[in-house]
Amino acid sequence: MTQLESAKNGIATPEMKAVASAEGIALDSLVSAIADGTAVIPFNPSHRSCSPVGVGRMMTTKVNANLGRSVTHSGKGDELEKLDVAVKAGADFVMDLSVGEDVKSIRQGMLDASAKPLGTVPVYETISRLKGDVPHMDPSLLLDVIREQAEQGVDFMTLHAGLLLRDIPRAMGRKMGIVSRGGSIMAEWMMENRAENPLYERWDEVMEILAKHDVTVSLGDGMRPGCLADASDAAQFSELDVLGELVERCRRRGVQVMVEGPGHVPFSQIQMNMEREQKVCAGAPFYVLGPVVTDIAPGYDHIVSSIGATAAATYGASLLCYVTPAEHLGLPDAKEVHEGVIAYRIAAHAGDVARGLPGARDRDDAMSDARTAFDWDRQFSLALDPAHARERWLRTRANADEAHSDDHCSMCGKEFCAVRTSRRIRELMSRMA
Amino acid sequence: MTQLESAKNGIATPEMKAVASAEGIALDSLVSAIADGTAVIPFNPSHRSCSPVGVGRMMTTKVNANLGRSVTHSGKGDELEKLDVAVKAGADFVMDLSVGEDVKSIRQGMLDASAKPLGTVPVYETISRLKGDVPHMDPSLLLDVIREQAEQGVDFMTLHAGLLLRDIPRAMGRKMGIVSRGGSIMAEWMMENRAENPLYERWDEVMEILAKHDVTVSLGDGMRPGCLADASDAAQFSELDVLGELVERCRRRGVQVMVEGPGHVPFSQIQMNMEREQKVCAGAPFYVLGPVVTDIAPGYDHIVSSIGATAAATYGASLLCYVTPAEHLGLPDAKEVHEGVIAYRIAAHAGDVARGLPGARDRDDAMSDARTAFDWDRQFSLALDPAHARERWLRTRANADEAHSDDHCSMCGKEFCAVRTSRRIRELMSRMA
Repeated sequence: MTQLESAKNGIATPEMKAVASAEGIALDSLVSAIADGTAVIPFNPSHRSCSPVGVGRMMTTKVNANLGRSVTHSGKGDELEKLDVAVKAGADFVMDLSVGEDVKSIRQGMLDASAKPLGTVPVYETISRLKGDVPHMDPSLLLDVIREQAEQGVDFMTLHAGLLLRDIPRAMGRKMGIVSRGGSIMAEWMMENRAENPLYERWDEVMEILAKHDVTVSLGDGMRPGCLADASDAAQFSELDVLGELVERCRRRGVQVMVEGPGHVPFSQIQMNMEREQKVCAGAPFYVLGPVVTDIAPGYDHIVSSIGATAAATYGASLLCYVTPAEHLGLPDAKEVHEGVIAYRIAAHAGDVARGLPGARDRDDAMSDARTAFDWDRQFSLALDPAHARERWLRTRANADEAHSDDHCSMCGKEFCAVRTSRRIRELMSRMA
Repeated sequence: MTQLESAKNGIATPEMKAVASAEGIALDSLVSAIADGTAVIPFNPSHRSCSPVGVGRMMTTKVNANLGRSVTHSGKGDELEKLDVAVKAGADFVMDLSVGEDVKSIRQGMLDASAKPLGTVPVYETISRLKGDVPHMDPSLLLDVIREQAEQGVDFMTLHAGLLLRDIPRAMGRKMGIVSRGGSIMAEWMMENRAENPLYERWDEVMEILAKHDVTVSLGDGMRPGCLADASDAAQFSELDVLGELVERCRRRGVQVMVEGPGHVPFSQIQMNMEREQKVCAGAPFYVLGPVVTDIAPGYDHIVSSIGATAAATYGASLLCYVTPAEHLGLPDAKEVHEGVIAYRIAAHAGDVARGLPGARDRDDAMSDARTAFDWDRQFSLALDPAHARERWLRTRANADEAHSDDHCSMCGKEFCAVRTSRRIRELMSRMA
C-alpha cells in the first residue's frame, strides 16, 4: 500500500509516525492530511538509506536542491560532493537532473549517499538514451524508464503530463516560449508526431507503476513562464487546469501527488498564483521553483528568487525548489549549491513565520535573546549557517585595532552599541522605580 | 528657498527639471508632488559635487548605502573606497555614519567625492565630540553640530525627534529594547536628565537651520523593532504618530521631510506597516531599513532584508536603506557594500515592477528577448551587475569539456536547451501553418 492508501484506511505507517514526530504535529492530523492529499511523504521503500520527510501546509516549508550533470559539465564525483553540501546546508529533498551518459549510475550513487528523498525527471534519461533524438522517442521507452527508476528507489518524479497539444500554440506566442526542459521535450515530440502528450494519454499505466512503488508524482509545469512578461498567461493556467484533473486521478488511484509551479512571476502576482493552484488542485502540495521576481539580475538569482519564494511560502507553497547564483549562466558549483540552499532556507523559514506556523518564531526569539545577552556562541548555534556567521565575526575581531571583547560588535563599537545603551537605560529605570 | 518652498510657489527649480528628466515623468506632476510633500529632492546647494535625486512613489524606488567608520574599525581611505564601490554598484544615496575621531574630515572627503546626496546622523558627531558621554550632552551642542553639518553641505539628516519620554518604558519592556543607535542615545540622555527629547522640544529651531540650507529631514525611527518579536508594537506606533505630527510641521515650515521605518518585521506585517506610515505621515516618502524578515540568518542579512525590502517597495516605501552581509556581525568591507547595494537594487526594481510603475518592466523584457536570442553581450549589458554575470558565465565556458558555443548555456547543455527546443517547435509550427 502507498502512504496515501494506508492513510485512507486509517493506518499510520512508520513513515507517518516519524514525520509527525519530526514536525511536532499530531499523528491523527497528519494521517487525515495524507488521506485527503493535502500532505505527502515522498518515500520509495526501495530507497534504503532514505528518511521520510513530510510536505504540506501543516508542516514546515521544505527546500529542494536540484543537482545533476549536464552533457558537457560535471560528473559523478562532483555531483556527490554537491549532494553532501546541499544536505549539510539543510536541503530537505534533492533532485538528480543528470543528462547524458551513465545517468543510472550517477543516480545510484546519489540514492546510496542520500538520506533525503530523491527526485528525477524520467524524460531526461529517456532522451539521453536516445542521444537527444526527441522525435523518435517511443512512449513505451519513457514508461520503461519510469518503471526502472521506480524499481531503483526514486522517491518522486516530475512528469510533464499536463502539457497538452491545444496549449502549445499559446506558449509559442509568448516572449520566451517553453523554458521547462522537460516540457519543451514533450512539446517537441508532440509537434513532431502530431500526437497528444503520451504521459497524459497513458496516465493510467503511469499510475500503476507509481502506485506499486509508492513513487510520489510531482506534476511538472511545462508551461511555467520563463520571464515576467509570460507570467500568469493562458498557457500556464490552461495547463494548471489539466494538473488539477490529474491530481484528482492520482488521489483516486492512491498515488501521492504534488504540483509544480512557476517560474518567473512578478512579486505582485505570487499570492494569486498560490491561491489559484491551491484551489484548482484541491490543496495538493505546491512545489514552486522560485519564483524569480525580476529578469535582470543574472548572477544573483538565488536572491531574486528567494524573494519570490518567501511570498510563495507565505501564501500557499509547501516545497521550494532552490535557485542558485549560477541560474541562467551555468551549472552551479558546490559553493553555489550551498548559497542556494541557505537562501531558500531563509525563504522557507520567513514564510513559516509570516503564515503563523506554530512555533516557527521560537528560534528567532531565542536568537534575539542571545543578541541581547551578547552570547555569541549561542547566536552562532542558532544561525542558519553557523560556520559562516562565526567566520565573519572572527574576521572582524582579528582586524580590530584594539582588543575586541564580546559585549558588542564592530558595527557601532562599544561606546555606540544600542544594546549596551538599552541596558543602561533599563538600569536607570529600575533605580528610578 | 527650499525645493518645497519653490514648489509651493509653482516654481520648477533646475533640480526638479533634472529629476523629472531622469525619471521620465512630467515636470508639473513632480512640482505638485514636492509641493504636497509626497516627493522630496534631498539636495543641499553647498554640496557642490552633488547631482539631485528624487524620492517618492511617483518615481523609481531608490537605494541608500550606509557607510562610515566605527571607533575601532576602518578609516577615511577605507570609507572613500566603499563610497566608490557603493556608487558604482548603483546606490542612489549614501550616508556617513562615522563615529569617533575626525568625523568632520571623513565627511568632507565623502562630500567632495560623492555625486550622490549624502546623509548623516548628527547626534553621532555630537556624542563623538563628547567621547561618548551621553548624559552630559548639551542640546545646544547638538544644534550646533546640525548647523555645521548643514553649512558643510549635508543633504539630509536623520533626527530622532519623535522618540518621547512617554514611550521609553514601553520600549524597555521589549525583548530587545531600543536598537536604533541614535534612538538609544536620545533615550539615555532623556532618562539621565529626566527631560523630554531635546530635538522635539527645540524643533522650531532645528527647522530654521534646515530650511536655511534646504537640508531634508529624515525623521529617525528610534523605536524601530530590533527583532521580529518587537515588531509593530505600541512603542513603534506611538513614535510614528509623533513623526506624523513632525511631518506636518516640516511641511508648514517649508522643510522637506522623509520618514524612516523598520527594522525587523515579519513578512506578513510589512504591507500593514507601509500603509500605516503612508496614512499617519500623509504620504511622506518612507525610507525603510530592510525590513529583516527573520532573525536567524546572520551573515546573510542582505538576502533576508532584500525580501522585506521588496515587499516594502511594493506597498509603500520610496527609499530602501541597504543591509549588508556583515549586519549584526561587524562593519561591512567593500565587497559586502557591493553585495548589499546589488541586493537592494534587486528589491527596488522588483518592487517597481510589482507596483506597476510605468516602464519598470521594460528592462526585464529586453533581457528576456536577449535570452531568447542567445545574445550574451546584450544580456550582460542589461544585467544589474554586468561584470559579475559575465565573469560567472566565462568561468563555465573555460571549464567546458568541449568547445562551448554561445547558443546555449551549461545548465542544460546544447541538446537539452529548452530555448533551442522552443525555437525548433516554432519552426515546426510555421511549416505546418
